[in-house]
Amino acid sequence: MKLGQATIKDIAKELNVSLSTVSRALKDYPGISNETKRKVKELAEKLNYRPNAIALSLRKSKSFTIGVIIPEVVHFFFSTVISGIEEVAFANGYNVILCQTNEKLQRELSSIEAMLDNQVDGLLVSYSKETEDFNHFTKLLKQNFPIVFFDRVPEIENTVNVTVNDFKGAYDATSHLINQGYKNIAHLAGPKNLTISRKRLDGYLAALQDHSIKHNPDWIIPCPIGTQEESFEFTKRLFENEKAKPDGIFASNDIAAAGAMMAVKSLGLKVPSDVGVVGFSDWQFSSMIDPPLSTVSQPGFQMGEKAISLLLEMINKKKDETWTPKTVVLETELIIRKSSEKIITE
Amino acid sequence: MKLGQATIKDIAKELNVSLSTVSRALKDYPGISNETKRKVKELAEKLNYRPNAIALSLRKSKSFTIGVIIPEVVHFFFSTVISGIEEVAFANGYNVILCQTNEKLQRELSSIEAMLDNQVDGLLVSYSKETEDFNHFTKLLKQNFPIVFFDRVPEIENTVNVTVNDFKGAYDATSHLINQGYKNIAHLAGPKNLTISRKRLDGYLAALQDHSIKHNPDWIIPCPIGTQEESFEFTKRLFENEKAKPDGIFASNDIAAAGAMMAVKSLGLKVPSDVGVVGFSDWQFSSMIDPPLSTVSQPGFQMGEKAISLLLEMINKKKDETWTPKTVVLETELIIRKSSEKIITE
Repeated sequence: MKLGQATIKDIAKELNVSLSTVSRALKDYPGISNETKRKVKELAEKLNYRPNAIALSLRKSKSFTIGVIIPEVVHFFFSTVISGIEEVAFANGYNVILCQTNEKLQRELSSIEAMLDNQVDGLLVSYSKETEDFNHFTKLLKQNFPIVFFDRVPEIENTVNVTVNDFKGAYDATSHLINQGYKNIAHLAGPKNLTISRKRLDGYLAALQDHSIKHNPDWIIPCPIGTQEESFEFTKRLFENEKAKPDGIFASNDIAAAGAMMAVKSLGLKVPSDVGVVGFSDWQFSSMIDPPLSTVSQPGFQMGEKAISLLLEMINKKKDETWTPKTVVLETELIIRKSSEKIITE
Repeated sequence: MKLGQATIKDIAKELNVSLSTVSRALKDYPGISNETKRKVKELAEKLNYRPNAIALSLRKSKSFTIGVIIPEVVHFFFSTVISGIEEVAFANGYNVILCQTNEKLQRELSSIEAMLDNQVDGLLVSYSKETEDFNHFTKLLKQNFPIVFFDRVPEIENTVNVTVNDFKGAYDATSHLINQGYKNIAHLAGPKNLTISRKRLDGYLAALQDHSIKHNPDWIIPCPIGTQEESFEFTKRLFENEKAKPDGIFASNDIAAAGAMMAVKSLGLKVPSDVGVVGFSDWQFSSMIDPPLSTVSQPGFQMGEKAISLLLEMINKKKDETWTPKTVVLETELIIRKSSEKIITE
């Protein structure tokens, strides 16, 4: 039997169980005994059963459905990306189904399974903070299954990606703080395994260097969870413990910036006169908080439009025709509000 | 041929076109000529082709996928509901796929089609603001397809629903404003066709009546779109035009409340000393705006948990076994913040 030719029927027949038992056993669903799971998995491995390969080769017609995998639907930036995706998808007769991973690798894996079971024609993916191994994507890409990555670009060769210029956005935000007269700028960084976190950190460091400011490694604070509570705690600790207190904060997202601002205020310091704060990604609430938060706006809607357009191109290619790897980089925009206005123009 | 027995194969064969052409023609997708669409649709009607009936009767095994249809993923309340749904779904070996309707009936219809094409085992639905005719749901329910409605309960008999006590929430919010000393309370209402809007309005009116305050019909302002800009405009107009100005605002959601607060402030009035404001549904930003917004918190997570639990019960019933119609009502909680604190306790 050639690689990938066994079906769940073969497994079910050989073990004398139902198709649904095999399917559920392979997916580790509850309600199936460990003994059965073991037997099914062993035989599947022996027969070189590969679910996705089979599913993909069985596809006869398009489903006109696109699957979108995102970390969190409530994230304002992602919701604008989704709007862009949907706009183009609906105009082209495609439906869009979403799965959120809640930043969990396990949910990312099962979401992809569900999407493939549902015969989506292609995937738009922004992977989870937990994802460090990209095998589940490379497997699909090798089978010529259309995937476009957006915002978070994985370290896989020859992919199609849409991202924003995170380096430039961070550079602009930090330079703005420096130009306003803030000299001791701390950085609340994103999770280390995300390329966007590293690029924003690099932009921050480059801006300091270009203004001949030496960076303080203790003032680069990774915020792996990304909640307001986390950045509140970390910021409070930073300001309470250090001798030379920072007078500026560049946060890798607006939630972290909001938490930092609350921490600074809780210590009796004022924003922006004592401490200037700039966030990243212009959440819906950012203009409404006190003081309104300066931030780096990302073109979410255009990102969605571009990502789905590239995906539709891939889907509409002839079978076996390959696509050209590329990364489209969209520009950000610095939005200056009160939280970073130290210089009052008369 | 009996009702609902024709398949797209019969149509394709008779017209000598491909299955995919028939499928796309029936769904009005682009790329199919109007002539073909007409022919396909006429024959489908003649043969009594009913896509959902067929799709449903062909279902052999469960897909272990639940479809969730919501107006907007960025809506904080809905995102908490989704979390509750996902928690229970994943624990039971189910995946969750989402479609957002953007409050459009057309997208609701095509999302349901996509979900059924994808063979979801059941649907959790919060319908769009545009939906006034519930035929697309009653058709499915007649075929015993499991649907649980949440938050927005449609006017269909014998459904299973999970909602919150909107009347009580609105009553509590309005009573709180009255007890704080605000006597002239306006109401920014939700879209008229949503039951929740009517219940919140009823709660507002009942609270005024119970405190012997006559309501002013001009101060009940429907906000059909639900954006901050809309409520900003309407609130400004209300305060500029009326002789007896309101001193309190109860808004049917926090976005509207935030817009109203900005309008009040733009007119030089102060919140809460001149005007008290209370919203509904405790968005993520509501505690961070200036002043922090009093609001009615809804148990979104529990709503999601309850809705999926009821749906799984329905899915796991034996074929032809019917379910008991019911509406589970969850209680709200009034969250008092600065925006409505007229009485300063010493």
